[in-house]
Amino acid sequence: MSRPLPDDLWPEVRPDAARRLMAAAVESFASRGYHATTTRDIATAAGMSPAALYVHFPAKSAVLFAISRSGHERTLAMVESTVAEHDDPVEAMRALVERFVAWHARRHVVARVVQHELDALPPDEYRVVVDLRRRTEGLVRDVIGRGVEAGAFTVPDMRTAARAVLSLGIDVARWYSPASKPAPNVLGRQYAELVLNMLGHRGATPA
Amino acid sequence: MSRPLPDDLWPEVRPDAARRLMAAAVESFASRGYHATTTRDIATAAGMSPAALYVHFPAKSAVLFAISRSGHERTLAMVESTVAEHDDPVEAMRALVERFVAWHARRHVVARVVQHELDALPPDEYRVVVDLRRRTEGLVRDVIGRGVEAGAFTVPDMRTAARAVLSLGIDVARWYSPASKPAPNVLGRQYAELVLNMLGHRGATPA
Repeated sequence: MSRPLPDDLWPEVRPDAARRLMAAAVESFASRGYHATTTRDIATAAGMSPAALYVHFPAKSAVLFAISRSGHERTLAMVESTVAEHDDPVEAMRALVERFVAWHARRHVVARVVQHELDALPPDEYRVVVDLRRRTEGLVRDVIGRGVEAGAFTVPDMRTAARAVLSLGIDVARWYSPASKPAPNVLGRQYAELVLNMLGHRGATPA
Repeated sequence: MSRPLPDDLWPEVRPDAARRLMAAAVESFASRGYHATTTRDIATAAGMSPAALYVHFPAKSAVLFAISRSGHERTLAMVESTVAEHDDPVEAMRALVERFVAWHARRHVVARVVQHELDALPPDEYRVVVDLRRRTEGLVRDVIGRGVEAGAFTVPDMRTAARAVLSLGIDVARWYSPASKPAPNVLGRQYAELVLNMLGHRGATPA
């Protein structure tokens, strides 16, 4: 990989060789799909030997799991900190959607792999990721619930509403491309306004 | 394939062997990804020889294109007829979302292949599909535009709003599973209400 890695991709992963392998795997999984990619493909794209890959990851599925777990842990931490920052459920939801959507636009290649290759994870690893997703969805449902209690939101069904909020953000990774307008941050603000409307918030104005 | 094909899957495709090959391809693409599937895999799953497959499709990409074009043509036809049925943009949008969402829930395996393997189409076939998508998105934008003119909708940005409406429906195919609640038709009605809210419609009530 001659391109430098963006700072916000797996800063917690050490050593750097493991990060480079994860980045190479993302490119290969995104262009060819998980099943058609070999560990040799990943190692070669990262400028390493297959043996060097096995020093860091015991199998191809371990690379996918590292990518997927990191993405889901990061999302959960983002939602947790956003909820902690805002007492007002309307402002919590606005900030949450802005960040969630902007991230899925900016890191759409990684996010697409994380979302679309979920079924390729081995059972134990799948359970870890599903648990992270449940906790994230639970936090989003709590924010909606607090908004409904406060009379700020009106939704037909809490569970469906929480799913729709996350689904809108996740699907940005599918359709967003470098040529897409608007920029990730602008899209995040537009989506936050759409989501507040969707949750039945009246008189939503830009922050 | 011992299972009978649902009546609403490619009723226009003849002969039946071609439909069976398309159904077998959907199963293989969904479980292993397009790139890891061979024409032999598809033929075997359909109970045919590879030579028999080539009678109907010149290449693996032709099977994917047949699946993708049919799905997109069907969606466009559905949106066109729904728009023609309803003068009121609010009712047009409600009916459109109900049908679009219910279809993506009911046929989530086919829809997932169509949506997630788009980049695997050869350039000419890709352009055909992208044109169908543009026309569908244009119709949705027109309905939103008529609603805004009539004072029934208020959106921050027409293009982003149209994308969000379609994105919500398309992403149902990613997360929906046979174990998912609610049923496709119920989900369609809940989503229609969420979308009308999202578009700034006030006082949305179930039809």
